[in-house]
Amino acid sequence: MANFVHRRQLTIEWAYCDPAGIVFNARFFEIFDGGTWALLEAALGVPRHQLATAFDIMGVPLVDARARFIAPVKFGEQVMLESQVSAFRRSSFDIEHRILIGDELAAEGRETRVWAVLDKDNPGRLRTRPLPEEVTARFRMD
Amino acid sequence: MANFVHRRQLTIEWAYCDPAGIVFNARFFEIFDGGTWALLEAALGVPRHQLATAFDIMGVPLVDARARFIAPVKFGEQVMLESQVSAFRRSSFDIEHRILIGDELAAEGRETRVWAVLDKDNPGRLRTRPLPEEVTARFRMD
Amino acid sequence: MANFVHRRQLTIEWAYCDPAGIVFNARFFEIFDGGTWALLEAALGVPRHQLATAFDIMGVPLVDARARFIAPVKFGEQVMLESQVSAFRRSSFDIEHRILIGDELAAEGRETRVWAVLDKDNPGRLRTRPLPEEVTARFRMD
Amino acid sequence: MANFVHRRQLTIEWAYCDPAGIVFNARFFEIFDGGTWALLEAALGVPRHQLATAFDIMGVPLVDARARFIAPVKFGEQVMLESQVSAFRRSSFDIEHRILIGDELAAEGRETRVWAVLDKDNPGRLRTRPLPEEVTARFRMD
Repeated sequence: MANFVHRRQLTIEWAYCDPAGIVFNARFFEIFDGGTWALLEAALGVPRHQLATAFDIMGVPLVDARARFIAPVKFGEQVMLESQVSAFRRSSFDIEHRILIGDELAAEGRETRVWAVLDKDNPGRLRTRPLPEEVTARFRMD
Repeated sequence: MANFVHRRQLTIEWAYCDPAGIVFNARFFEIFDGGTWALLEAALGVPRHQLATAFDIMGVPLVDARARFIAPVKFGEQVMLESQVSAFRRSSFDIEHRILIGDELAAEGRETRVWAVLDKDNPGRLRTRPLPEEVTARFRMD
Repeated sequence: MANFVHRRQLTIEWAYCDPAGIVFNARFFEIFDGGTWALLEAALGVPRHQLATAFDIMGVPLVDARARFIAPVKFGEQVMLESQVSAFRRSSFDIEHRILIGDELAAEGRETRVWAVLDKDNPGRLRTRPLPEEVTARFRMD
Repeated sequence: MANFVHRRQLTIEWAYCDPAGIVFNARFFEIFDGGTWALLEAALGVPRHQLATAFDIMGVPLVDARARFIAPVKFGEQVMLESQVSAFRRSSFDIEHRILIGDELAAEGRETRVWAVLDKDNPGRLRTRPLPEEVTARFRMD
């Protein structure tokens, strides 16, 4: 049983690159964030700005993010971003992202996000809520 | 009669620079935005995140921004940002920003912002409101 | 005689938006920059990272940028970016950018860029060079 | 034997924040990057843009980055960034970053960077080189 993979082709913009002529590290996390929103939208069938309302949550805040930078990604390159849920837990889930230049893996990342609602006992803070089965089921490709 | 000038020393970070090794143009507008918040905070004596509440507005949204790039600003340089209100109108105002490397003017910008409240007749949109005299007076240095 | 218009559909990412839930002003300039590169690539038929080599220049640095923000652009919206050279001068040119939500003009910008080479008499600085006719001709749609 | 800690007070700018009103995740990595440059500069006694020349390297590229987001960091907050080398290996090193709001740990990150020179056998790529003892010694506080 595998999970749905979202693929998105990206052009590496001048704005993404640093004085070394390669993508600045923080931009990868921005790219991963965009991949997650696109994946959620595609899997759940709800536009990204309506996800919170559709599922009665505040959002899916990030609690952990990491990336490994394997090969330089340069200005003007065409890359493929692949995003996929790699694990569902009770109220959190992991999304794995891969950036490919042709067949070469140039960078990979993993985000851990939580299914979150406002914490009524702690104004301005969030608390997690169990991921609904109707949500997790939408990511499976059987 | 002159207006208060806010000065702020900045180090040009790696993250600000593009493959030419100089500050990427959009970053200047981010730097100007930071200068405006710091200027408002200093002149009005209210922390930036409390300005909206303190003055019963939604914010001071930008309606026009421009910049002129005169000399390259490079990674690691120490620059001085000078921010100053250059004009008050009925419900809008201009802020001028200058980026100096030593005595050399490297970039200059101008933002036009409005004093804005929620538009009750047009949900999700803003409308302007006259700038209170108590606000404009705080920027003058007599 | 009109100039070639480059159109590009964009999704407004979470990363572009500020606490007001709308695109942060500096991001528009980043979007315009991307529009210019895409326009140059399309009109000149050379990948963006090979433009400098193909035309024996250092680049097309920005000397002036401005934007007018007309209507809020929100997270998740689909917008159309239209980019077009609006004026060619001896060694500089203007690019106009429009961001449309459906038929509504939400923001517009103008960049002035120069055709630049390294200044042999002034290390680390650039100087302008006349725009070749072979370049300007490629933007015309007769 | 402990390593030198670099501390830097930061104001959370409007530009750093997302529609949830908190720092957008990728910005933390940008903040960490700035912390690393400031730490290197302070420990090694060389301005950041002269490090490569001073030590005859191409730079200290990131090969791995991670962050844990513990508490929301909001617009206008004053935070303390603490950056410290946590491990030196033969040709790589780890930098740990902590973002504190008062005494509360709001986010923490770890970067792994390599001491890199141009790879003469593989144009455009880098290869690692052993960290000089004169470098690692400068981070110790005995």
